[in-house]
Amino acid sequence: MPAPGDHDARRRDVSVAVWSVLAARGFGGLTLRAVATEMGASTGLLTHYFPTKRALVRHALEIAEERTDERDRRVPADEGMEALRAALLDVLPLTPETTAMSRVWVSFWDGALGDDALAARQKARYERWRERLSRHIEAAQRAGRLPAPADPGELAAAAAAFAHGLVVQALFAPDDFPPDLQARLVDTFLAAFGSLTALD
Amino acid sequence: MPAPGDHDARRRDVSVAVWSVLAARGFGGLTLRAVATEMGASTGLLTHYFPTKRALVRHALEIAEERTDERDRRVPADEGMEALRAALLDVLPLTPETTAMSRVWVSFWDGALGDDALAARQKARYERWRERLSRHIEAAQRAGRLPAPADPGELAAAAAAFAHGLVVQALFAPDDFPPDLQARLVDTFLAAFGSLTALD
Repeated sequence: MPAPGDHDARRRDVSVAVWSVLAARGFGGLTLRAVATEMGASTGLLTHYFPTKRALVRHALEIAEERTDERDRRVPADEGMEALRAALLDVLPLTPETTAMSRVWVSFWDGALGDDALAARQKARYERWRERLSRHIEAAQRAGRLPAPADPGELAAAAAAFAHGLVVQALFAPDDFPPDLQARLVDTFLAAFGSLTALD
Repeated sequence: MPAPGDHDARRRDVSVAVWSVLAARGFGGLTLRAVATEMGASTGLLTHYFPTKRALVRHALEIAEERTDERDRRVPADEGMEALRAALLDVLPLTPETTAMSRVWVSFWDGALGDDALAARQKARYERWRERLSRHIEAAQRAGRLPAPADPGELAAAAAAFAHGLVVQALFAPDDFPPDLQARLVDTFLAAFGSLTALD
């Protein structure tokens, strides 16, 4: 029987391998065999951790959520236009690490749309994200930097839409969407919504 | 040997079944077995049409592209702000038919990100779409309804981003994103970019 330390280390190896497969092939390419190959282990060993494909997908989702939550905590706690900008930049594929994360989430949308429990989870993630964006938007409205009559929730949906649609285009054409262009597009988006204020 | 007419009719049945499976389960859930069940046919019959999973995916993609191109042709040929608005509304899940189409394309992103040939095809689709949007944007710029110094290609990328990100949120929360809210968000987006003009 392996020592508990070995077991924990092995679990971490499994998680790292699951993440590598996800980042390279998405949820659609996530199989026990692919994870085993990534680890240089047998499929049999993997079935000890994941008796079913569903268990594997659930674990993959937990890793993705954990990594995303870690990232979310890096966004400045202060609110308003700068925090909104930081929160949007934070979901874009600007680095290899965030590109992998973006690719995993885009891939997860497919799996989630075909599974009621996963879809509910994704819907709740969106709600939490829009709530966080709304807080920044309300602060920007109080500061006169976003139009005050606009519904913060609707502006949050618009901002989330813009960021996620940019993620998808950038994933398919990384050379056409270098980090500086992605950042410029975010600034144009924020300037556009900000300029509505001048017309209030 | 069946008459050629039978063969064509059967091909249409197959295509309809492939579309139904795609709309319900996405590319991730597209299997010969699922299509066979949808048709009430044997998996053996299906292998006559699709000897490999890859052939099935290729056919599914052709159906999706054909249906999308038919839809694209419905957008008014005239250019400018109204055509831009129509082109954005056209990709949103506003009806059961366009919801199915949106769901299929979101699902396809996952498959395409894991396959170089499919990714190149998706990248080219995005380029063609941004070019079409750019033509409307240039006309709107000439009419003074969008900011003239802005790069039309970048505004097209921003508009495409906004629309696709809205698609994803609406697919996960159809009750929270009824058609009138989706249309209102498009109008807010266009008003925001249009109001940049006032600040030129």
